[in-house]
Amino acid sequence: MANFKGHALPGSFFLIIGLWWSVKYPLKYFHHRGKKNKLDHLQQRLELIEAALKTLFSVIGILAEQFVPDGPHLHLYNENHWIKLMNWQHSTMYLFFGVSAIIDMLTLLVTHIPLGVDRWVLAVAVFTEGFLFYYHVHDRPPLDQHIHLLLVFGLFGGGISIALEVIFRDNIVLELFRTSLLIFQGTWFWQIGFVLFPPFGTPEWDQNDMGNIMFITMCYCWHYLVALCIMAINYSLVYCILTRANQRGGGGGGEIIGIQKLKSDHTYQTALLSGSDEE
Amino acid sequence: MANFKGHALPGSFFLIIGLWWSVKYPLKYFHHRGKKNKLDHLQQRLELIEAALKTLFSVIGILAEQFVPDGPHLHLYNENHWIKLMNWQHSTMYLFFGVSAIIDMLTLLVTHIPLGVDRWVLAVAVFTEGFLFYYHVHDRPPLDQHIHLLLVFGLFGGGISIALEVIFRDNIVLELFRTSLLIFQGTWFWQIGFVLFPPFGTPEWDQNDMGNIMFITMCYCWHYLVALCIMAINYSLVYCILTRANQRGGGGGGEIIGIQKLKSDHTYQTALLSGSDEE
Amino acid sequence: MANFKGHALPGSFFLIIGLWWSVKYPLKYFHHRGKKNKLDHLQQRLELIEAALKTLFSVIGILAEQFVPDGPHLHLYNENHWIKLMNWQHSTMYLFFGVSAIIDMLTLLVTHIPLGVDRWVLAVAVFTEGFLFYYHVHDRPPLDQHIHLLLVFGLFGGGISIALEVIFRDNIVLELFRTSLLIFQGTWFWQIGFVLFPPFGTPEWDQNDMGNIMFITMCYCWHYLVALCIMAINYSLVYCILTRANQRGGGGGGEIIGIQKLKSDHTYQTALLSGSDEE
Amino acid sequence: MANFKGHALPGSFFLIIGLWWSVKYPLKYFHHRGKKNKLDHLQQRLELIEAALKTLFSVIGILAEQFVPDGPHLHLYNENHWIKLMNWQHSTMYLFFGVSAIIDMLTLLVTHIPLGVDRWVLAVAVFTEGFLFYYHVHDRPPLDQHIHLLLVFGLFGGGISIALEVIFRDNIVLELFRTSLLIFQGTWFWQIGFVLFPPFGTPEWDQNDMGNIMFITMCYCWHYLVALCIMAINYSLVYCILTRANQRGGGGGGEIIGIQKLKSDHTYQTALLSGSDEE
Repeated sequence: MANFKGHALPGSFFLIIGLWWSVKYPLKYFHHRGKKNKLDHLQQRLELIEAALKTLFSVIGILAEQFVPDGPHLHLYNENHWIKLMNWQHSTMYLFFGVSAIIDMLTLLVTHIPLGVDRWVLAVAVFTEGFLFYYHVHDRPPLDQHIHLLLVFGLFGGGISIALEVIFRDNIVLELFRTSLLIFQGTWFWQIGFVLFPPFGTPEWDQNDMGNIMFITMCYCWHYLVALCIMAINYSLVYCILTRANQRGGGGGGEIIGIQKLKSDHTYQTALLSGSDEE
Repeated sequence: MANFKGHALPGSFFLIIGLWWSVKYPLKYFHHRGKKNKLDHLQQRLELIEAALKTLFSVIGILAEQFVPDGPHLHLYNENHWIKLMNWQHSTMYLFFGVSAIIDMLTLLVTHIPLGVDRWVLAVAVFTEGFLFYYHVHDRPPLDQHIHLLLVFGLFGGGISIALEVIFRDNIVLELFRTSLLIFQGTWFWQIGFVLFPPFGTPEWDQNDMGNIMFITMCYCWHYLVALCIMAINYSLVYCILTRANQRGGGGGGEIIGIQKLKSDHTYQTALLSGSDEE
Repeated sequence: MANFKGHALPGSFFLIIGLWWSVKYPLKYFHHRGKKNKLDHLQQRLELIEAALKTLFSVIGILAEQFVPDGPHLHLYNENHWIKLMNWQHSTMYLFFGVSAIIDMLTLLVTHIPLGVDRWVLAVAVFTEGFLFYYHVHDRPPLDQHIHLLLVFGLFGGGISIALEVIFRDNIVLELFRTSLLIFQGTWFWQIGFVLFPPFGTPEWDQNDMGNIMFITMCYCWHYLVALCIMAINYSLVYCILTRANQRGGGGGGEIIGIQKLKSDHTYQTALLSGSDEE
Repeated sequence: MANFKGHALPGSFFLIIGLWWSVKYPLKYFHHRGKKNKLDHLQQRLELIEAALKTLFSVIGILAEQFVPDGPHLHLYNENHWIKLMNWQHSTMYLFFGVSAIIDMLTLLVTHIPLGVDRWVLAVAVFTEGFLFYYHVHDRPPLDQHIHLLLVFGLFGGGISIALEVIFRDNIVLELFRTSLLIFQGTWFWQIGFVLFPPFGTPEWDQNDMGNIMFITMCYCWHYLVALCIMAINYSLVYCILTRANQRGGGGGGEIIGIQKLKSDHTYQTALLSGSDEE
């Protein structure tokens, strides 16, 4: 949907999942330390809900793209010309994220799927989104092209990072990086909506002005900084709440032990992988 | 061969090998768990047959490219001009896959070849194919260029993934990724044939139409989705058949133990490589 | 600031940090060997001072870019046009390095931040700088474009290297590589200043001359060689001083043992990671 | 030197080193297995001779580029124009390889240089060569541009592979890959000489003909195949000679044990790194 809502909808989806991840991964990081080797039932349930939510978002996205008044209504080809290919491309993007969500669910429910398949399919979904966007912007005004192309940088960075998680699974830094890029993508979709389709009667942006393109490039960096700040705040909140809950719950319990163990575990990891320090 | 058959032939080769891999790797994954450390004689024989088949395909491909009626018949240069360089380039591609197949065979038969050399030569063959395609499309209509260039993306992704297998050998996710890209490549060759050389008298595609290019980009993504589905089905079939065979064979035997071990092995791997979880 | 000072200032900042790193990392490499597993209090204090210095440099940079006489003075938009976007972009670069410095400090002071976050944010800052420079040079003369673009190569190489440190932390070679690129960047900023804004009344460079562009490309390589030499000298100095201090301090003490241990540790690392030698 | 000799000289240098490597690495691979953990004195001496030879080649290269009759004779700038920048760029390439050779020597002779620095500087030298070639070909005829650009592909592949050796040192596959690219580069330099400056009075190639460019692309692939064949032959020869020497020397001695151990070591490596097989 080439309008404000068509960018606000996916932006909101990405933001919701991104904000949830910015709480989930710190939580998992602190929590798992305390209770060794047990895959929490609560956590598994949360993961399932997350996967279901992602599936739901994908279905909503596909339906919205197909059945808005000016959508293709599932018609692809008609008398010698393609119908609403833009909407079809957007549907395809949602479809890949839907498949990724279904694989997430299967990985949780069925035990014989190799770990890493979920990350791989997610990386494929992200690369596909980047790939479609890259070929999406032909024959459009410069600002429109540029603002979509910037998105592709973040997507390819994210795709590489997620693909690395196939091998370095459960690496907290890779998980946080993925989270930051997702929040970033969410806010950037909103930004695209505001720039290309000003919603509140604000004047149109001149799409050929070099100044606007330069500003948008810089603005893109600021968005990432905002994403980093949001994550830092959520990370700190999770830490504070966990520490307080722990103190109330009896002092010196599992959580604190977990947190104190961080340092030595990382030393172990360092020694193992680089073999060049403090081993 | 710049015609329908010239694309259907390699497409079929890739599809056959791809479908076989989509059965072989799940089989190997489930099977090897049960019987520790023994390189099955049956498996080794299957690998040999596979390598022989790949060699055969390469030879067929080279012969077909050289000796079709309008082929070069092994003549390369004649009175100041090159003869049928297209066919020669295709022959070169087949040749590299043939070399890769021979190396596969040697690695199986001769014990003193370092593991990883087979993957490296396969990666080189894939990169070479991508490289030749990249310089293949000069001076052709936009749709023709685009549909071949899309192939190059998949090939470079595949090449990187196979090169990673030199270091992370026997990683099931990398193997499945490679398989999916091979099936994908097979179906895409057929698609190229159907688009550029419509076989059943269907009307020609307008090779300069932007709509067609946009559709083909999206269609490319759908092909990968189809490849993923084929793999998911084959993976499930292999699992079902193995489980049933196992239950009939005595209950609680080797296979099941193998499958139950998956989880803990991956935990081991995770702990080893990332050092940051559930160790 | 599009003048000589605007390039000499960041160049000096990068040089100072780079020179310090070229002393710090060899020092850490030799030192840590002797005293196992203890994070030196002195070292931690030095790291803190370094982070504070980096923050200070960023603040100075931002203030200089904003409040020079022809700067934007924190005004971004005014009556339909953007104000001094160049200065704003430079401020953004400094801002990212400032954030990276703050994260460095937090990682040192607060124990619950996962190791690797500091490297990740530094990599982001470097990529952002490269990204902004890449889109910085539109509509400028060829030499200006080229001399800035060359910088981007070094920045992307550095970004990849720093991102690798998230996983291979404390690898001395990666640290030295990062250091060399930083010194390199520092001297190159000075070079840019001298070429584009000759300070001492020397004649202007012809910005469209192909010869100048070819020379600058080669000159870029020489700068890296100079950075390597500086590092080699500092590395040797640190070694000599440490060895002498050690001999004076009692002979055969911790340091020497540490240095002798290098070889066997690396053997251990090799065996662990490649499994193909001397194990 | 833009003539036949100017390409034959570096081509010969690369070929000599490449052929030596194609003997050295298989030798090292088979040999080190038998005698555990001892850095052979003979091997170390050979490495030193190799490094000295590389330094010598670099010095010859630099002197040849500088002091051929139409060379710059160490003059860089003269009355407002640059002198023979081509020759200076070639000298710079040799210089980087010379620095790399010196670092190789230092790594062998001085014990306190971290392992991996030699590989890193070699990777830098290869990237620099690729980088200079990339900016080398401006304003030349298409065939000249293309034939030099093809070289850059191989160089960047080699650079990445060598950089990986910083982390995965002594991985035989990476070493063989490096060797193959070096032989490849050597034969390709000769090919460039023959194409651009036909030495024996053969007719000039039409540098604008698309057919020539297509042939050269394919020819590039054939060169790599030749490099692979040369390596395969040398590898087999080394194996045969070692086995025969071993049988004569007493039967069942160190070498054979070494060779038989290969399989189990690789299993160990696989289990360690991928954790997903035969562990």
